[in-house]
Amino acid sequence: MPEQITLYTCKICPYAHRVELALAEAKAKYTRYEIDLTNKPEWYAHQVNPAGKVPAIAYGGPPVPADQPSPESVKIAESLVLLEFVADLFPEAQLLPSDPVLRAKARFFIETVGAKITPSSFFREGGSPDDFFARLEVIQALLPTSGFAVGQYSIADAAITPSLARAHMRLENDIGPWKEGESKAVLAVIQSPRFARLYQYIKDLEARPNFKATFDKEYFADVFKRRYGNIRAQNQ
Amino acid sequence: MPEQITLYTCKICPYAHRVELALAEAKAKYTRYEIDLTNKPEWYAHQVNPAGKVPAIAYGGPPVPADQPSPESVKIAESLVLLEFVADLFPEAQLLPSDPVLRAKARFFIETVGAKITPSSFFREGGSPDDFFARLEVIQALLPTSGFAVGQYSIADAAITPSLARAHMRLENDIGPWKEGESKAVLAVIQSPRFARLYQYIKDLEARPNFKATFDKEYFADVFKRRYGNIRAQNQ
Ligand SMILES: N[C@@H](CCC(=O)N[C@@H](CS)C(=O)NCC(=O)O)C(=O)O
Ligand SMILES: N[C@@H](CCC(=O)N[C@@H](CS)C(=O)NCC(=O)O)C(=O)O
Repeated sequence: MPEQITLYTCKICPYAHRVELALAEAKAKYTRYEIDLTNKPEWYAHQVNPAGKVPAIAYGGPPVPADQPSPESVKIAESLVLLEFVADLFPEAQLLPSDPVLRAKARFFIETVGAKITPSSFFREGGSPDDFFARLEVIQALLPTSGFAVGQYSIADAAITPSLARAHMRLENDIGPWKEGESKAVLAVIQSPRFARLYQYIKDLEARPNFKATFDKEYFADVFKRRYGNIRAQNQ
Repeated sequence: MPEQITLYTCKICPYAHRVELALAEAKAKYTRYEIDLTNKPEWYAHQVNPAGKVPAIAYGGPPVPADQPSPESVKIAESLVLLEFVADLFPEAQLLPSDPVLRAKARFFIETVGAKITPSSFFREGGSPDDFFARLEVIQALLPTSGFAVGQYSIADAAITPSLARAHMRLENDIGPWKEGESKAVLAVIQSPRFARLYQYIKDLEARPNFKATFDKEYFADVFKRRYGNIRAQNQ
């Protein structure tokens, strides 16, 4: 029986989102505490994560308010470490298969396509979407013919979902540093036969209850629109 | 009972060395196949690791010569993935503790100090050893008061050993791009009270049977001496 879990997180953060996906998949009970990254509380780096980043988990210890963490709880940071931690805490959720080979495949998937999830240059600066397509090709090549990254749902899927879903949402809503309307053509490529397998995968990830419970599409569209609305206005 | 294991490796490679340490610790039976990185066999990228790198494992499948890998064996690459794989294959070797919190600590150790093990600039270009000391401080800060990275020996130790042992060997034998004799002062710092805990850790790692079975000090001293002997000659 796992002890108490407090997750320090932030809606906007794709790394934190990974852990929320895993916790939701495991139907874990936990306290969710939103950290305002633009105005981090002073106690956070001192008492939770010296790196000052989300996500982090305070595990165990006495029941305390999330903003007064107990020195007796264990503090754990780094999203990929936390994915494995959630898988270990909730073995019955099968967040990793039990077969060592499939476990290795899940971890290889993370190492190869999930470790770095910064948006590709198209999403940061506009220009050619080729580097984005190249990344998608690598992901697609690793996918089995159906199902998730290693067949059954696993932490490999939780690791990659945040970046795929954010990209998808921004293309659908035309939110980025590019010229208005430019994302239509990019989305069309993803929906073309070239990326048929990958697009199915994205739809499967987004249809999953753990995704619906952790991704607030309107909130995101709003935040990103404000961010990139300004950039577009400047570029005009 | 694990199936057959063939490890494609190379003495000089610190990433491959990690996996040899884990296999030795688990007392695994395996076929060791040395890949000449300066003259890689053509079949290697085609039939084992598309990235053309060591380490890689061919797991299972029919008994075949290592240089004629069977399409029926599973091919797995990436040293950190392979460390987890070996831990999963040989649970009785306890290469990861069973407590989820300790497992998370082992993985945090790897993520923080073990993921990138390229030598620091002092070993590559000479100059100030400050970046090397800074790395050692980070490692030391993570160590418990005694024992290994998380107390009992784990894959966290296997992940960091190759870089620490290579650095130690080069300092002891004065092999690097620096001026002759310059490593003495650096070694003295590591042996001073400032790094007492870390130095004990290095000695513990090097005293372990799995290290003695996988590190050929004379071979290394020889290879590095040739490499840096030339550089020193050029710099004179
Ligand atoms: N490697 C970390 C990255 C986490 C990270 O970069 N989080 C960002 C938000 S997306 C953060 O907390 N930034 C705050 C800061 O650096 O001050 C992980 O995987 O958990
Ligand atoms: N990320 C890989 C790195 C492995 C690696 O870089 N191996 C080097 C030797 S130390 C290699 O095989 N290089 C050959 C090449 O790139 O052609 C791992 O952790 O296994």
